[in-house]
Amino acid sequence: MTPIDDLPIRDELRGKTPYGAPQLDVPVRLNTNENPYPVPEDLVRRITERVSDAARGMNRYPDRDAVVLRTQLAHYLSRTTGHQVGPTQVWAANGSNEVLQQLLQAFGGPGRTALGFDPSYSMHALISRGTGTGWISGPRTEEFNIDRAAAVAAIAEHRPDVVFICSPNNPTGTAVDEETVLALYEAAQAAAPGRHGALVVVDEAYAEFSHRPSLLPLIEGRPTLVVTRTMSKAFGAAGLRLGYLAADAAVVDAVQLVRLPYHLSAITQATAHAALEFADTLLGYVAELKAERDRLVTELTDIGCEVTESDANFVQFGRFDDAQDAWRRLLEHGVLVRDNGVPGRLRVTTGTRAENDAFLDAVRAVRKEISQ
Amino acid sequence: MTPIDDLPIRDELRGKTPYGAPQLDVPVRLNTNENPYPVPEDLVRRITERVSDAARGMNRYPDRDAVVLRTQLAHYLSRTTGHQVGPTQVWAANGSNEVLQQLLQAFGGPGRTALGFDPSYSMHALISRGTGTGWISGPRTEEFNIDRAAAVAAIAEHRPDVVFICSPNNPTGTAVDEETVLALYEAAQAAAPGRHGALVVVDEAYAEFSHRPSLLPLIEGRPTLVVTRTMSKAFGAAGLRLGYLAADAAVVDAVQLVRLPYHLSAITQATAHAALEFADTLLGYVAELKAERDRLVTELTDIGCEVTESDANFVQFGRFDDAQDAWRRLLEHGVLVRDNGVPGRLRVTTGTRAENDAFLDAVRAVRKEISQ
Repeated sequence: MTPIDDLPIRDELRGKTPYGAPQLDVPVRLNTNENPYPVPEDLVRRITERVSDAARGMNRYPDRDAVVLRTQLAHYLSRTTGHQVGPTQVWAANGSNEVLQQLLQAFGGPGRTALGFDPSYSMHALISRGTGTGWISGPRTEEFNIDRAAAVAAIAEHRPDVVFICSPNNPTGTAVDEETVLALYEAAQAAAPGRHGALVVVDEAYAEFSHRPSLLPLIEGRPTLVVTRTMSKAFGAAGLRLGYLAADAAVVDAVQLVRLPYHLSAITQATAHAALEFADTLLGYVAELKAERDRLVTELTDIGCEVTESDANFVQFGRFDDAQDAWRRLLEHGVLVRDNGVPGRLRVTTGTRAENDAFLDAVRAVRKEISQ
Repeated sequence: MTPIDDLPIRDELRGKTPYGAPQLDVPVRLNTNENPYPVPEDLVRRITERVSDAARGMNRYPDRDAVVLRTQLAHYLSRTTGHQVGPTQVWAANGSNEVLQQLLQAFGGPGRTALGFDPSYSMHALISRGTGTGWISGPRTEEFNIDRAAAVAAIAEHRPDVVFICSPNNPTGTAVDEETVLALYEAAQAAAPGRHGALVVVDEAYAEFSHRPSLLPLIEGRPTLVVTRTMSKAFGAAGLRLGYLAADAAVVDAVQLVRLPYHLSAITQATAHAALEFADTLLGYVAELKAERDRLVTELTDIGCEVTESDANFVQFGRFDDAQDAWRRLLEHGVLVRDNGVPGRLRVTTGTRAENDAFLDAVRAVRKEISQ
């Protein structure tokens, strides 16, 4: 094998390593915000029925515009948020990462910038860089919230083309209130470099787990406000890779100018369709996970941890003098959590009741080790 | 809906329309080089078995590195080309379009250029532009071949970072000989802007239909020579969206720096795995299609058409004074072919025997209409 440095790769990639959490084989895996419940057997059967039909005609290209799936997604959003959206306002791709990439290809790119509020979902910055979009790291408060005044000032100063608001925020957990989103949207429009305004992307990957209502209704009358979603978390379908967005239909037209043709396979469309038919069952699991998430917050606080308020299926906790050391110690107790690089903090995904108990026991043990 | 021009999309996208052949509902659809044979029932059953297993664990992220699938693909390539490749030399993504996009993100991009020989697969230019890579259109002969001397001169003049060689070439049909590829590779290394050489991408989407052997063995000892493939054509799986590449393992490491994490779903990996288990059955259909393709060449020539030699599952034919008019007339006879914008020519995909007969009848009728 040739050393990678002997290849004509782009200079900014030299010395880099691929993104991704370690995939380790440990008893309790609470590191990637997966849903701990296996797909119910009824849904497995429905998936195989739909996939079987799709496979039979797999010699043909899939529906390039995924109209049936987008109709189902629009129906799901309409009925769970109370805000009516139609299929022309919805777009789907292989994971919300691909949705974000398409948005950045159309609205970001070379000579343009995107701004997000770190710490946040690190793919926002990575996909920005991957599409040649400059990245600007905006501020958060010590409690990991968006400080409205500071955020508006950052937007006015940097005049970004794209603004990312992650709500609930990954990896910290808190949802953003409507007034803040509106203030940032106004600021982004006022500061935009051209006459067209900036694109504001509200990443709602964890929306179904939130104490607050979805921000989706804000797209009404705001043609450059986009809400992105995923089936990885609430639908328990991380393995499916299905992300989507809702926005003005013009935004959907715009991403179609940059999407790879036939990007979404017939098999993926069929599987997602089946999962959407089981939305109510899957949202039942979400209710259980929310209760477990709240228990984690309470028990971690009782143990003596500093815990960030959570609207997601994970909880940020600390504070550790050395988060990397605490991460390693938890792993030695058979529990894999995530070190997102937030000083003194770790992130734990809500698992099953038994997994959460094992995690809490491990935290107690690690705190004892550290304090000795 | 907001007019798209009121959105802050990139200037180069303004006024553009999405790429893609018209998907029309006509009796004989021979426009997108699909395989006309439906997936055999045995394979449908195997897919549902494998997908059923994958769906059960779909709450977890897929294997990010798709190791099992890449091992199967390496095995397929090794046994059909006689050149041994291992899983570290193979990479897979959602269609060869995504493979090409990842290659261009790593080796092309802003400030870099790619060169191809038009007319060729138009996505080479489109994905280049989509990744900010400058596009240079190199020459072909009047018979649609690559003129070795002219091509070498074009490379020396433009010093591209990436060179595309499509073999068999879409939409014209002819495969490229080994000596030409080697000459272009040498020229690309000699002319490369940096000390690292240029990347040469041999797009073998239609390799299994060729009269010539695969160019895959040429990757040996040539770290910047990449061969791309797809399961859309020979495997009759356009709906699956599975493309792959073989190259030096360092190239695979390089694309992993730009790939979106978990880009390939567990369901896609399972379906592709099942299809690879049926490779021999599917290659049997390829043999039938090659015979039908040769019949199309012979009969179109007998009818009086000018036909380009074909190593693919399609045939370029003409010459028409007005190819658009001929395309419309064939459609009126219930046959959908492709107008790729090559002056005076159209492209027909090899269908089933009955579809090909219907197409040949339509050509006879249209030639009669035009000559009247």
